[in-house]
Amino acid sequence: MVFRKSFALESNDKVVTFHNVTEQAAETVRESGIKEGIVVISSHHTTCSVITQECAFDMSMTGLETLQQDLVNVFEKWIPTQRSEGMYLHPGQEALDYAEQHGEDNFGCHNTDAHLRSSIIGRSVTIVVDNGTPDLGEFGRIHFIDWDQTRGRTRTVWVMIIGE
Amino acid sequence: MVFRKSFALESNDKVVTFHNVTEQAAETVRESGIKEGIVVISSHHTTCSVITQECAFDMSMTGLETLQQDLVNVFEKWIPTQRSEGMYLHPGQEALDYAEQHGEDNFGCHNTDAHLRSSIIGRSVTIVVDNGTPDLGEFGRIHFIDWDQTRGRTRTVWVMIIGE
Amino acid sequence: MVFRKSFALESNDKVVTFHNVTEQAAETVRESGIKEGIVVISSHHTTCSVITQECAFDMSMTGLETLQQDLVNVFEKWIPTQRSEGMYLHPGQEALDYAEQHGEDNFGCHNTDAHLRSSIIGRSVTIVVDNGTPDLGEFGRIHFIDWDQTRGRTRTVWVMIIGE
Repeated sequence: MVFRKSFALESNDKVVTFHNVTEQAAETVRESGIKEGIVVISSHHTTCSVITQECAFDMSMTGLETLQQDLVNVFEKWIPTQRSEGMYLHPGQEALDYAEQHGEDNFGCHNTDAHLRSSIIGRSVTIVVDNGTPDLGEFGRIHFIDWDQTRGRTRTVWVMIIGE
Repeated sequence: MVFRKSFALESNDKVVTFHNVTEQAAETVRESGIKEGIVVISSHHTTCSVITQECAFDMSMTGLETLQQDLVNVFEKWIPTQRSEGMYLHPGQEALDYAEQHGEDNFGCHNTDAHLRSSIIGRSVTIVVDNGTPDLGEFGRIHFIDWDQTRGRTRTVWVMIIGE
Repeated sequence: MVFRKSFALESNDKVVTFHNVTEQAAETVRESGIKEGIVVISSHHTTCSVITQECAFDMSMTGLETLQQDLVNVFEKWIPTQRSEGMYLHPGQEALDYAEQHGEDNFGCHNTDAHLRSSIIGRSVTIVVDNGTPDLGEFGRIHFIDWDQTRGRTRTVWVMIIGE
């Protein structure tokens, strides 16, 4: 049996966005009636990721949980946010021309760090469903991440459940 | 058709734990009778991962295969093991207070590196099942990793098979 | 319902290989007749990965799209290509002896970087199938990556679809 649902989120500009989507995923699993199987939580977008991570209680100055901010910080060391041209090869002239012809933002094309981080972490997680519940442990949370800091946008998340 | 099983492992303190769970996964697939589909091997815990990696033959001084030790070593460069306070924002005061109220170990809360590494690699792998066998190639192995070096614990691994 | 297909690719020596397998995956989903579910695109090999990434238009000097080259470049910083012995613990003497006994190439054993990068990114992606189409957005592409730069080889890719 297959059951699916998508929903929309609003992401931030200027900072990496973390949305806790644990309850939406668990509620969709309950709604499906599926007791045993898997739930795939997936981003429609190539600059976003989905991860599971423990709830961290304390908050950083930008409003992220400390573990979320630590994740951003380690990526900042390896794949720094693109704050000027030339940090990465992308976007090249053809990509910029294409964007301009389609009324898109030059600044918004410089989200290479977001593309790379999303490719590495991946756009989805697959979680075991046991007895009608996603297996997350006591403090496990599902976070949708929008790595793109150039603008806020409406983002789409998929919840796809397969099982019986 | 859905078939599932979980089993327990004992992890180490002081070093990152790698458990070869290839045979348990293959045996569970055989037991299921499922010939074509997928098998998801998943950690119940947010400081653990599951990966596939080639068998490496030689061992490091801590008893890991060389490729496993190389993986630990590259993470040590990027996301070093938390050996003192202040290397990461997590755990903050609220997390430490919560732990103390629940009789948990202050030292054991300083496993931030394990949380970050697990978020990046992920808690599960999805492997194609072909003709009743997980597709791993001749030397592919499935390793359960416990990144948490602050203590040894009983860990739970899921094997979830979907197919026909 | 389950539907599967595998196909072969030829990878490069000397540079990391990216193959755009988007159309093969989409065509296999159409052929399956499955409308809602998931498609898993998976590498048979432990030195390869599958990712999704946006089309980047411009090309690098080695013939990769700029975003692909940026991904290679950030890994080069963290997990450099093995250009001489001793950069990693693997391959050890037993691995080299085994290779020699089986007529394999000593040079080709020094692909440790490829094993590590593949373990970190993973060997597969799981993509939501909605209305008979893999959910990739307008510019999303599925890339098979062969990280191994020591030799060109025939590589096998799996497309496994589960749904109804």
